[in-house]
Amino acid sequence: MSVFTAAADQSICAPLPVLGKDVTVPLVTGGEVTYAALDYAASAPALQRVWDDVAAYAPYYGSVHRGAGYLSQLSTDLFESSRATVAEFLGCRADDQVVFTRSTTDSLNLLAAAVPADCQVFVFETEHHASLLPWRDARVTYLNAPRTPAQAVATLERALADRDPSPSSQLRSSGGGPTGPALVCVTGASNVTGELWPVKELAAAAHAHGARIVLDAAQLAPHHPVDIAELDVDWVAFSGHKLYAPFGSGVLAGRSDWLRDADPYLAGGGASRKVARRAGGGVDVEWHTTAARHEAGSPNVIGVYSIASACKALTEAGFEGLVAREQQLVTAVRAGLAEVPAVKVLSLFGDEAPRVGVISFVVEGWNSSHFAAALSAEYGIGVRDGLFCAHPLVRTLLGSDPQDVGECGAPEAEPGERSLNAIRVSFGAGTPDEHIERFVRAVKELVSEGAQWKYRTEDGRCVPDRGTAQV
Amino acid sequence: MSVFTAAADQSICAPLPVLGKDVTVPLVTGGEVTYAALDYAASAPALQRVWDDVAAYAPYYGSVHRGAGYLSQLSTDLFESSRATVAEFLGCRADDQVVFTRSTTDSLNLLAAAVPADCQVFVFETEHHASLLPWRDARVTYLNAPRTPAQAVATLERALADRDPSPSSQLRSSGGGPTGPALVCVTGASNVTGELWPVKELAAAAHAHGARIVLDAAQLAPHHPVDIAELDVDWVAFSGHKLYAPFGSGVLAGRSDWLRDADPYLAGGGASRKVARRAGGGVDVEWHTTAARHEAGSPNVIGVYSIASACKALTEAGFEGLVAREQQLVTAVRAGLAEVPAVKVLSLFGDEAPRVGVISFVVEGWNSSHFAAALSAEYGIGVRDGLFCAHPLVRTLLGSDPQDVGECGAPEAEPGERSLNAIRVSFGAGTPDEHIERFVRAVKELVSEGAQWKYRTEDGRCVPDRGTAQV
Repeated sequence: MSVFTAAADQSICAPLPVLGKDVTVPLVTGGEVTYAALDYAASAPALQRVWDDVAAYAPYYGSVHRGAGYLSQLSTDLFESSRATVAEFLGCRADDQVVFTRSTTDSLNLLAAAVPADCQVFVFETEHHASLLPWRDARVTYLNAPRTPAQAVATLERALADRDPSPSSQLRSSGGGPTGPALVCVTGASNVTGELWPVKELAAAAHAHGARIVLDAAQLAPHHPVDIAELDVDWVAFSGHKLYAPFGSGVLAGRSDWLRDADPYLAGGGASRKVARRAGGGVDVEWHTTAARHEAGSPNVIGVYSIASACKALTEAGFEGLVAREQQLVTAVRAGLAEVPAVKVLSLFGDEAPRVGVISFVVEGWNSSHFAAALSAEYGIGVRDGLFCAHPLVRTLLGSDPQDVGECGAPEAEPGERSLNAIRVSFGAGTPDEHIERFVRAVKELVSEGAQWKYRTEDGRCVPDRGTAQV
Repeated sequence: MSVFTAAADQSICAPLPVLGKDVTVPLVTGGEVTYAALDYAASAPALQRVWDDVAAYAPYYGSVHRGAGYLSQLSTDLFESSRATVAEFLGCRADDQVVFTRSTTDSLNLLAAAVPADCQVFVFETEHHASLLPWRDARVTYLNAPRTPAQAVATLERALADRDPSPSSQLRSSGGGPTGPALVCVTGASNVTGELWPVKELAAAAHAHGARIVLDAAQLAPHHPVDIAELDVDWVAFSGHKLYAPFGSGVLAGRSDWLRDADPYLAGGGASRKVARRAGGGVDVEWHTTAARHEAGSPNVIGVYSIASACKALTEAGFEGLVAREQQLVTAVRAGLAEVPAVKVLSLFGDEAPRVGVISFVVEGWNSSHFAAALSAEYGIGVRDGLFCAHPLVRTLLGSDPQDVGECGAPEAEPGERSLNAIRVSFGAGTPDEHIERFVRAVKELVSEGAQWKYRTEDGRCVPDRGTAQV
């Protein structure tokens, strides 16, 4: 895959210091152990550098934009220079806008609200919910799950070629293509399998058919450099909390025209340039045409600055070296799991597909929730179980009946029955070798020797069943 | 006003420690001075207690909800217990929901998206933009600026009595009143004048006419206890960054029915309970009916926890004692400004109106931006100049032509001409006496002796004109 070719022959980085690396947690079997945070795909720990930057800034925090005081002006400069840092991190083009949101979900909802009224949206049914669901007001074409990257490109090509003529062919000139505006939304790296999607090839296909494309980089940006111009995508969305900056901000970056032409995402101060009483009653509003148009309300300066800090930290550490190291960890986890016949790793594109540090699996004879609970309670390892906010994909991979829509994370089959949930392990720039080694050892021990305790579901959470220690 | 009656005869709290209280800033006149943050109405410094809580938690940060690890479960518990803390802080009723947003602006946009399709909205044209502008899809009635609290109630009463019969009279039973659903949006304390609005009386008027009411407490909650049940409002909105918790979160709390019946504010994971492929293509979604319905995406755990920490800190310090002290500061500022004939304090309700620590004014013969810049550069005092995201109100108070809609904060009249902008000083629980004393002294000196430097506008910011020192 194109996005990974640059990683070859790079020197390997040591793990970056993260908050919580020395935190110990109690084991149900007695004693304590340092916590192994292996749920990076949901939310990564803050880089120590990010925390230090936030802590150094916090006393200087001030209101941004119209504040006349020294700290207000310092904070305003920090906010706007953070925007420039993110633009540089993503390789933005001169006319791209960087809009700060609260998360990838928020970014894609913003874009969904900004697409032209007659825009046709193309999305694979394998997308996670943040990419799958926001397109409420647009005409959506759901694409079948591909089983190879090439099939993904071919599927998209075919769908774009087949699309219905749009009623408003006058939009052709504004990026709309021959049959009206269209948008493809695709994830860069799956939050379930970690597999990379052929973003550059999908972007080329989209553009060849006059469509635009937004890259959901929530799981890609923390694991690999993303260059908006080199991938030739129109927009990129990602979240701070997966990029080692968990302070409530996210990013939508890319083409400014649709954003500038759209109604403001939120209506309020900051987005409004002028508001005046109308002679006959009511108000007239002139909205900003910059990124501020979609950033109404007081900006989350700390959240935005933390993202900029993370971007700098990853770049300065040598992102390619971090990628190379993460690939070693991926190899180690997959090799370890491959030694356990009861483990089935979930994959859409097969063993050879390039992937980031996100791996989901089921264990024959195990309830996935109980397995994840045992990893936590007996080994101090934090993974995730469930459907990972990508229900259709996980059900496809598990071979579940598509109509079988059990609640995400609800108590599932008893041991021995078919799994309705999966277990996900995920890691990144802060993960030490020991966490990976412990995880592989734990899986092997649990499968070969069983858990030392029994687990039961209580208030939707899987917990050790006190009194059932099997030691 | 009802909300302040409880403050009488309370003992007075000392200022609460805040971040940045020892930060020094350079003066254009030479040397440094501790920064006087007097722009609380835009964004308040973090309470030291809030920062300490965030710093203590940060190493334990983990993904919430479906994470199986110890820190994920700890973080999930912290997130949900923060919701309970906020509910208690606001005196929520048993069936109220507390939804976490990113700010008051976001909260009111959420509510605007959740009102029934044929809801009629009533809003005073004196509202700031966060309350004035979000109601894009609703039928909005703008109410004229009242000049007394009683006139506000009478104006609302009359408008509600006059409202058009709604096409959907079948909604009567669900809080809709005799002529369909209606919503009143009112600010608790003005972000321009600091004056309190008669919230309880407006709520009674709304309910008497079958309407609902949302309280914009952005400027009230940081300055006075807000009890949703006692005020009998249907919803309350406020922001963390004005409540000493500037970590990117806000709150909408109140009646659950409209929220439960509305489309999810954001579409994505966390809001979706079940997602399944539809037999004929596409997806079927079952959304949560709890607060999670409107909280799609990974929650801002740190932002939410910081708000809960601030709520506890204010309560435990003795909120009534903080109110009593703030009232002393209000009295001191107003008394100081009253001694300067060139100063005109902006007021909608007159001198006797109860108010919080937010005071706006103009100075005869001064460009407000230059005055604010001089307060910063020569005294280390951070105030704000502009129209405070409440353009119609400020223009009404300044007596400007309503059609004269100069850009918020743009370079305005030269000294001697009529002010198109104003200066706002605002303070709260962290403000020491010295900041207020310095501010009053600075105003007097600037008016009587003039600034030591000249100021000019450069890139939209007012700066000292190097080389023009008048010493």
